[in-house]
Amino acid sequence: MSKKLQVTVWGENVHEWKHEAVRQHYPKGMHQCIADALNEAGDIEARTATLQEPDHGLTEEVLARTDVLTWWGHCAHDQVEDKIVARIRARVCQGMGLLVLHSGHYSKIFKSLMGTTCSLRWREAGEVERIWVCNPGHPIAQGLGEYFELPEEEMYGEPFGIPAPEEQVFISWFKGGEVFRSGNIWRRGNGKIFYFRPGHETYPTYHNANVKRVILNAVRWAKPEGVWIDGAPEIKADKAPEPLVARGGSVHDAAGAIA
Amino acid sequence: MSKKLQVTVWGENVHEWKHEAVRQHYPKGMHQCIADALNEAGDIEARTATLQEPDHGLTEEVLARTDVLTWWGHCAHDQVEDKIVARIRARVCQGMGLLVLHSGHYSKIFKSLMGTTCSLRWREAGEVERIWVCNPGHPIAQGLGEYFELPEEEMYGEPFGIPAPEEQVFISWFKGGEVFRSGNIWRRGNGKIFYFRPGHETYPTYHNANVKRVILNAVRWAKPEGVWIDGAPEIKADKAPEPLVARGGSVHDAAGAIA
Amino acid sequence: MSKKLQVTVWGENVHEWKHEAVRQHYPKGMHQCIADALNEAGDIEARTATLQEPDHGLTEEVLARTDVLTWWGHCAHDQVEDKIVARIRARVCQGMGLLVLHSGHYSKIFKSLMGTTCSLRWREAGEVERIWVCNPGHPIAQGLGEYFELPEEEMYGEPFGIPAPEEQVFISWFKGGEVFRSGNIWRRGNGKIFYFRPGHETYPTYHNANVKRVILNAVRWAKPEGVWIDGAPEIKADKAPEPLVARGGSVHDAAGAIA
Amino acid sequence: MSKKLQVTVWGENVHEWKHEAVRQHYPKGMHQCIADALNEAGDIEARTATLQEPDHGLTEEVLARTDVLTWWGHCAHDQVEDKIVARIRARVCQGMGLLVLHSGHYSKIFKSLMGTTCSLRWREAGEVERIWVCNPGHPIAQGLGEYFELPEEEMYGEPFGIPAPEEQVFISWFKGGEVFRSGNIWRRGNGKIFYFRPGHETYPTYHNANVKRVILNAVRWAKPEGVWIDGAPEIKADKAPEPLVARGGSVHDAAGAIA
Repeated sequence: MSKKLQVTVWGENVHEWKHEAVRQHYPKGMHQCIADALNEAGDIEARTATLQEPDHGLTEEVLARTDVLTWWGHCAHDQVEDKIVARIRARVCQGMGLLVLHSGHYSKIFKSLMGTTCSLRWREAGEVERIWVCNPGHPIAQGLGEYFELPEEEMYGEPFGIPAPEEQVFISWFKGGEVFRSGNIWRRGNGKIFYFRPGHETYPTYHNANVKRVILNAVRWAKPEGVWIDGAPEIKADKAPEPLVARGGSVHDAAGAIA
Repeated sequence: MSKKLQVTVWGENVHEWKHEAVRQHYPKGMHQCIADALNEAGDIEARTATLQEPDHGLTEEVLARTDVLTWWGHCAHDQVEDKIVARIRARVCQGMGLLVLHSGHYSKIFKSLMGTTCSLRWREAGEVERIWVCNPGHPIAQGLGEYFELPEEEMYGEPFGIPAPEEQVFISWFKGGEVFRSGNIWRRGNGKIFYFRPGHETYPTYHNANVKRVILNAVRWAKPEGVWIDGAPEIKADKAPEPLVARGGSVHDAAGAIA
Repeated sequence: MSKKLQVTVWGENVHEWKHEAVRQHYPKGMHQCIADALNEAGDIEARTATLQEPDHGLTEEVLARTDVLTWWGHCAHDQVEDKIVARIRARVCQGMGLLVLHSGHYSKIFKSLMGTTCSLRWREAGEVERIWVCNPGHPIAQGLGEYFELPEEEMYGEPFGIPAPEEQVFISWFKGGEVFRSGNIWRRGNGKIFYFRPGHETYPTYHNANVKRVILNAVRWAKPEGVWIDGAPEIKADKAPEPLVARGGSVHDAAGAIA
Repeated sequence: MSKKLQVTVWGENVHEWKHEAVRQHYPKGMHQCIADALNEAGDIEARTATLQEPDHGLTEEVLARTDVLTWWGHCAHDQVEDKIVARIRARVCQGMGLLVLHSGHYSKIFKSLMGTTCSLRWREAGEVERIWVCNPGHPIAQGLGEYFELPEEEMYGEPFGIPAPEEQVFISWFKGGEVFRSGNIWRRGNGKIFYFRPGHETYPTYHNANVKRVILNAVRWAKPEGVWIDGAPEIKADKAPEPLVARGGSVHDAAGAIA
């Protein structure tokens, strides 16, 4: 009987097979690289799921047993079925943690949880990214220095079309002159959401020790701490906490349905 | 040439024609009652739009000229087309204000902007609701006392499945024993959103002077203060703010499209 | 060698010895009642500290080893020394958790962390308080039902002069007609802060099983997850992450002090 | 009878007379430079107040008629009297706007409103600062491009010891490699607070057209929209909104004072 934290690492799994520039870094797929790093930690059981599987690998059963879901997608956001997006969102609201990685900023699931455009400016030029820690005491920043650098990354620049983050963990400096909110926290329902910027497919970012540390920290931080099962119960007048006699007109029948 | 604040009052427009309990209070429809009150203010030009019109009355042109949209729906949320919801959401992110009224908590547009379930408990018993002001200096609370009462309203009770409000303007006390966050503010993109709880169709709530005052205040508060046109521009290396030479692999062609 | 969570329960310790109405419920003091309940949990080592001790029992050493501090004060807020308030606040910013109880809303430490008036309306009439859970999945709400009641409590009513809570855990309904945000979360620096409303000295509130459960949950939730040691380092030009040559005027000498 | 927005520009007024490097840019003082720019707008009446005046120029009367206060201080934060800080804070909670400029991050008033350390890293090397707009539709960003640059500024770098901003308007990129949240919004009570990073005394920053535009925009944005007069009223049982009979013990006498 496993007590390990159950993580599902979702990968779009397209670039790896179309572009040699990607495959050279991730011969088993980006998702497998991320899952392998998590499995090394000892307290985590990470499995992968991909776009091409039935239900994109995210059946009701898989999501029910998932504590934290990580999401990487880029060129095939539109191929993710709306019903699966709704299923993920429902689980986040219940309490499942969600890590959205890099180009996942434009995924259906992230946009549907944020309610905003999630747009940004970008440049694929293999430039230096320096990721600054905005809160050295935050659990997601443990084990890092004041900043860490990625020698080659895609640039994402402000304005980033997101609601104001509830906590700011990282902000990035780019060699070409831009800045970006690259480690952002929100809560939706009872689920904790962390967006982490790095991870362009043509660079070996997910092999970087600091990036692996952040993902590990974030997975542990995002674990559920309780469950909120959705419901919209009708409380009849005779079940009200205080004595109450119903009055006035109604559009509902005795069963609560609209007449 | 009008300089008045342009408000579109959207109404589902179903209950009024199906239920005498509703029509007696709103013989011209709930939306018309709300629009009439706004038009009395002098600085506002309010027009109505309803579910039954083409594009539900919310064409690109209508939304483009709308400063603030108010939304009341209940039994026909599912009949609102997804493409219209996406259109509204895009305008909110640009800067259009949005007032979501009462049962609009379960509308597609509200749920898509919140990212949560938006669920609550409820009871249709015509009980007293006392609406407390949590911030007496807030523009939406101007002209009210410490609280105001509605003698007959539907109960909505916590837990309300929303992200933490950015500002709390009202909280409601119900005779039957429940409480509810009944005046809540969020920002999405550059649009200001106000959820206002009262307004069950079987009571004359939108004829109440305090309710009219809140809606008028909120419309003025929610007016756009700037525009954010969506975009995800690629900034080529030779256009970067700092001198930069591109390097590394790429999945994009020279035009920025994915190869 | 203890691995237990180290909690310091601070009590003003005045009413208990002046008012029989208080002593009858808390013959060993309110702080001892709270500490005893925490010590029963097994994973917590709770000690007390009081106003009358040197440094109010909150020396540098005590605070350094404290994971979570709970605070109850009422009639002697002004007697708490400013230097001790500054010391507590520094530890909160480093990462120490803080639970502020009931009339602690007007304590120096709470006001200094909030930056607002922290005012409210009140009535000491022994009325029913019904505390609703706003987020059933929140760790602080685990083990509770949809709500719980206290048969006799002081009323605190809105408006409560606080910054918008980052998370809303509880809202209270009072028999006399008021509402109150009674379980509120903020973060300051790296410290987690929870304000919990109940606990008037003339009622046996801290003997209530649900109240004990909330305090236990909140202490566990507020434990430090990292440390942020304050500092304002000067980074000389030759230590900048990027090559940089200093230029322009200066008001500082070579050691960084203002000339 | 003036209807202009009443702004008080507070200046520490020390560096200007001690350091030629400062006087050359601000021969009439930095505060006068800022006030002059605001007075050019036409809709604003800006007056100055300085540390050296009685009550630092911030009497009850001055603050009562001030809509928005701007604050610049650096080397003499400790000389600001606590009673004046409390007076300012009370007015902010009522609804007065507050702009905190540059080294004002360490002022007593800013720290007391934030509740945190407000620390940061720094370097006085006259380097390029590029200030990015995070929300192009925000009123404070109107009239700016995607970013603007200051050719010579002091560096302030993350981590910045502040509560998470409620809105993020600007983030800065520094030539030396750091980033900083340089345009941040919070609300305290009913007052709007904007922190704006640039403005080191040895550079001509407050002569920069974009900086002047931001301060003008921010002053207009921060104007009061209502007033919240502090109070903690006792509501006797016979004045409760609902019928109520007082019961239970009490520590208060009939006048509400603690016995």
